[in-house]
Amino acid sequence: MTQPATPEFLATLEAALPPVTLRARREGELEDPRGRHHGQAATVARPGTVEEVATILRLCNAAGVGVVPLGGGTGLVLGQVAYEGPAPVVLSLERMTRIRGVYPEENVIVAEAGAILASVQEAAVEADRLFPLSLGAEGSCRLGGNLSTNAGGLNVLRYGNARELCLGIEAVLPDGQIFHGLKRLRKDNTGYDLRNLLIGAEGTLGVITAAAMRLYPRPEQEAAAVLAVPSPAAALQLLNLAQGIAGEGISAFELISGVGLDFLAEKMPDLRQPFDVPPEWSVLIDLGVSGGADPAEMLAHLFEHAFEAGLVTDGVIAQSETQRQDFWAMRESIPEGNKRVGSISSHDISIPLSRIAEFIPDGVARLAELGDVRVNAFGHLGDGNLHYNVFPAKGRDRSDYENIRAEVKRVVHDLVAAYDGSFSAEHGVGRLKAEDLERYGDPAKLSAMRAIKAALDPKGIMNPGAVLRG
Amino acid sequence: MTQPATPEFLATLEAALPPVTLRARREGELEDPRGRHHGQAATVARPGTVEEVATILRLCNAAGVGVVPLGGGTGLVLGQVAYEGPAPVVLSLERMTRIRGVYPEENVIVAEAGAILASVQEAAVEADRLFPLSLGAEGSCRLGGNLSTNAGGLNVLRYGNARELCLGIEAVLPDGQIFHGLKRLRKDNTGYDLRNLLIGAEGTLGVITAAAMRLYPRPEQEAAAVLAVPSPAAALQLLNLAQGIAGEGISAFELISGVGLDFLAEKMPDLRQPFDVPPEWSVLIDLGVSGGADPAEMLAHLFEHAFEAGLVTDGVIAQSETQRQDFWAMRESIPEGNKRVGSISSHDISIPLSRIAEFIPDGVARLAELGDVRVNAFGHLGDGNLHYNVFPAKGRDRSDYENIRAEVKRVVHDLVAAYDGSFSAEHGVGRLKAEDLERYGDPAKLSAMRAIKAALDPKGIMNPGAVLRG
Repeated sequence: MTQPATPEFLATLEAALPPVTLRARREGELEDPRGRHHGQAATVARPGTVEEVATILRLCNAAGVGVVPLGGGTGLVLGQVAYEGPAPVVLSLERMTRIRGVYPEENVIVAEAGAILASVQEAAVEADRLFPLSLGAEGSCRLGGNLSTNAGGLNVLRYGNARELCLGIEAVLPDGQIFHGLKRLRKDNTGYDLRNLLIGAEGTLGVITAAAMRLYPRPEQEAAAVLAVPSPAAALQLLNLAQGIAGEGISAFELISGVGLDFLAEKMPDLRQPFDVPPEWSVLIDLGVSGGADPAEMLAHLFEHAFEAGLVTDGVIAQSETQRQDFWAMRESIPEGNKRVGSISSHDISIPLSRIAEFIPDGVARLAELGDVRVNAFGHLGDGNLHYNVFPAKGRDRSDYENIRAEVKRVVHDLVAAYDGSFSAEHGVGRLKAEDLERYGDPAKLSAMRAIKAALDPKGIMNPGAVLRG
Repeated sequence: MTQPATPEFLATLEAALPPVTLRARREGELEDPRGRHHGQAATVARPGTVEEVATILRLCNAAGVGVVPLGGGTGLVLGQVAYEGPAPVVLSLERMTRIRGVYPEENVIVAEAGAILASVQEAAVEADRLFPLSLGAEGSCRLGGNLSTNAGGLNVLRYGNARELCLGIEAVLPDGQIFHGLKRLRKDNTGYDLRNLLIGAEGTLGVITAAAMRLYPRPEQEAAAVLAVPSPAAALQLLNLAQGIAGEGISAFELISGVGLDFLAEKMPDLRQPFDVPPEWSVLIDLGVSGGADPAEMLAHLFEHAFEAGLVTDGVIAQSETQRQDFWAMRESIPEGNKRVGSISSHDISIPLSRIAEFIPDGVARLAELGDVRVNAFGHLGDGNLHYNVFPAKGRDRSDYENIRAEVKRVVHDLVAAYDGSFSAEHGVGRLKAEDLERYGDPAKLSAMRAIKAALDPKGIMNPGAVLRG
């Protein structure tokens, strides 16, 4: 258990840091997106350098005061929402936003943890490179949070998640030691992989302060299509066919459910949709290629073959960059449509690719036993990652389902476990899924995690209550 | 310090395992490739199942007896050669060689840690897929060793190293707990990354017993060229140009030094070389593409542009698969040529890509101050990874240089550190480079490594003396 931040402690902290560093918690900050919990903050510390981060951690560690690292605050699993225990010091990276260096000839960018994801993308574009990490919150989430949660998003199929894009990190360990691991190397086999241990640890083992990330050449030509498919199984066969035609040129392959399109038609009627009647299943496929190839032609070729094989029933290939952006606007509006309808329970799951088509209807059938619900299953099919969200029947409200909410979640996660899947594909564990981790996590892994946590953070100051409960 | 394996202990071990499990150490096994050290073994245990591995570790842990995991025994840094302290139990994976499953529709293969790398590649080909990990020792090294050392090899540029190819592992922790982490998922953010902690830990934190590895579609067309370049800097510009033409189709981009070709001409005169007079620098570039593209045409196009730009001075594009294989035979014979000449000191280093061209002659100049030596700098240029090996002047022998050997190594590794590089890009630390790790490793990282080691292996039984010294 951590200690309260006493007035004396806060005075010591303030005295040890430049005057601008501490601020009060802002209205609306550190809130649960579901509105159930409120994050606490004894103070919000905004260090400007890695040395100041080290000072904060050293003082907090000495006093046993909890520290909750804060990036953009867009996380969905309460990793930044410390609603229990003594109010911690919230360590916001908001002032550490520098791009420290861009190395186009190495395909590397070095940025501080507080850099907004979109600004890292922009710095890459200015050097005629692509930083491929891309997700809905990219205008406000920060690189350090992306790494601490091992963010995924839209381009994982081709470029990997945050972990796979990271070559090196600078970080502060719970006792205030600075790990200078900001290597720009593709290969470095010198000891335990501390970088990957901190990535995805959700701020419970230290604070990532900067990172060296991979860049890629920008594809010369891009093209997108929305193709209606008879089933998720057909969508997977379509992916295989597409890989044969476009190889590694497939940047994204997203499954879209008719349920989600119905939500958009109902709640956001001005949004342009590619089909007059939303198909039960469709996929958004995005290609980016270089070397003189024509991705629109590849898509036409794919459509033709897939249509003959019965894998697609209809389709629209974007005729302009504007239309391609419309497709993406539709895809990226699905979470907002979901929000306006109001889910009973949402799940960020992954399933082995060969079983995902079977899983989708299996889940629907089991949920039907609990009540009259609608399932919007959508997302990064190419990665085996679905957002499998459960909604009220048409005309009913989520409040009608309060009594079965826990059971809905349990049924989905039990089924995910039975399919050898994951109950958190890309969002992380945070505080929301700490109990799921205890239930579904491998016991040896949990025991190793607890031993590592105790070894690196013996006082348990780092993000207390997140990932591993006390 | 670990305990000796007493006759009583060995009797207990034998009784707890099936009769065939224990064997004596074989002649020539566990030897230092440099001939300086001899690995010890109180017994060689050959478990057939993960449960038997768990039994061995549980008993050794209880008795404080050291355990040295053994794959193919091809490691170059003495990770498997325990030449000091009490003779350990050598735990050989030689009987755990099963391919547990191939999932072509998921692009995944699940294999046991004792599977020979080449047999994993073959199982992939049988399913019309590519398992891209490829290195000189592939006919005898084993998958578990590849993972424990995070092996690199020839295709890292395109497909990543062993770490990046691995989706999940099954492993036994030092206390005998079995970690069931054999997930076939591309995305799984549920707690600390125990998989990546064990990968590259060189058997000091547990024993990897099986792994789920990524497969890829097999490129439909392959082509290769050897191009003479005026300098390593030109080679890097050539790589950039090639990436513009062939995108992600570049499977390998290997730098070859004229010094290495001279060695081959002298020691292996029957080996076919592409040029009559070995150029001072050349690169072997290998393309693999699909979707109807013609890689030989791409290479011709590359040659034309690069020649105009002064980046290549001569070149041979393979006219047949046989000629392509000849190019690779030449590349893969370089280590054998080196061995026959006899190096003073060999270094497996990586340097940030933008500084590697500067590093190569800088190192040569500094080494010239120590004595009359030749440097064969070759390898995976696209990854920033060079084998930077130092040889006697023509007509002299390595024994003439015994007095400067330590200094040669020190000069190279100091310079690598000054260039923000790594003293072990792909071979690992083992026992050979444990002192380098202490000297060049980040202090915070070393302190975290020691804490993790003590937490997971409090008695220090796993591969004692490797990576972290006592």
